[in-house]
Amino acid sequence: MAKEAGAALNRLDRRKARTRAALIRAAQAFIADGQTSVPILEITQAADVGMGSFYNHFDSKEDLFHAAVEEALDRHGALLDELTLDLDDPAEIFARSFRLTGRLHRRHPELSKVLLNRGMALTRSERGLVPRARRDIQAATQAGRFTVADTELALTVAAGAALSLGQLLHDQPDRDDARAADQITEDLLRMFGLPADEAREVCRRPLPNLDELAQGDSAA
Amino acid sequence: MAKEAGAALNRLDRRKARTRAALIRAAQAFIADGQTSVPILEITQAADVGMGSFYNHFDSKEDLFHAAVEEALDRHGALLDELTLDLDDPAEIFARSFRLTGRLHRRHPELSKVLLNRGMALTRSERGLVPRARRDIQAATQAGRFTVADTELALTVAAGAALSLGQLLHDQPDRDDARAADQITEDLLRMFGLPADEAREVCRRPLPNLDELAQGDSAA
Repeated sequence: MAKEAGAALNRLDRRKARTRAALIRAAQAFIADGQTSVPILEITQAADVGMGSFYNHFDSKEDLFHAAVEEALDRHGALLDELTLDLDDPAEIFARSFRLTGRLHRRHPELSKVLLNRGMALTRSERGLVPRARRDIQAATQAGRFTVADTELALTVAAGAALSLGQLLHDQPDRDDARAADQITEDLLRMFGLPADEAREVCRRPLPNLDELAQGDSAA
Repeated sequence: MAKEAGAALNRLDRRKARTRAALIRAAQAFIADGQTSVPILEITQAADVGMGSFYNHFDSKEDLFHAAVEEALDRHGALLDELTLDLDDPAEIFARSFRLTGRLHRRHPELSKVLLNRGMALTRSERGLVPRARRDIQAATQAGRFTVADTELALTVAAGAALSLGQLLHDQPDRDDARAADQITEDLLRMFGLPADEAREVCRRPLPNLDELAQGDSAA
């Protein structure tokens, strides 16, 4: 994406964008390692930019870390949008998004750890999975597919489960991540009122080829 | 508790225990505020102990923070044990523990924030709610009360929901915490295979008087 927009930017703007991106990547790596108490100097060294450059882009370390997480969530949200474009049923959009999110923890372990280390505040975020899941649960309820009395409570369980699934998958490297993600999605669909047989069937439908997209995503 | 044990300790041991407890309390307050990057000196000042005392008790700040969270989890686990002593049905023990845990976020906001700031690693902890919920889900499945194929996946959803419920309750101070906790418990019981009417009935049974116990707990 930076490449496409870059043609319109002058040399200074391009350099600024590169510096900001390098700082964000470095911050994501430190957050993924749980090293949020790292000094700013060390972040700028890891990003290979001057200490002075830091304050051209961010007011504080917290400001940078916040931007790093938001950027990761936006990237995840854009991926989910792309991978559910062909669907109309909001129940299936929810299911596919949840199944795919469950598969991303191992495919993008660094991004996953960035998000897990951000912790529970993420379950209330207005970026990434949460606003999309809210929209899908509401639409599925309006369409009579789900029987959910309180969207925020349903969302609370789903968001908590999405994060704790990631923790489980990192802690149990031998566990089949696809099967675990599909089983939890099926359980959530039943909890939201979908008949058991349909919940099971929806969670066994084929998924878009994540390998190809994940490759494209990594290279961006 | 420190008072009861103290009678058997000599003066130096008592002072050591006081110092350790003061450091743990200070650490819990900093974690609750999300200030994990605070210098050790500031923690010792908040605890009103000398900087040298710190290293008599803990190897590092991370060591102290870890102990602070474990201590909070043990306290919560002991409370749940006490409040479910009169029950035999593991499904109801799970339900009551989850309903009570949901009610603790507002009653003990500082403890709750310590736990929420600890983040997702908590869903895999062997202290506090998680090992008790694992035991109850397994027992309820063996007794034919739950129909759970994979205890760890069921536990993953329950632990994630317990934490994200806390986040929701802090973010939405006007929301009825008891009603939200009971609704999510009921949803989880249905997910675990309890018939809908029974799930609802179990979650409407009276609870032990948390006010009295919470008072005792705070004073300890």
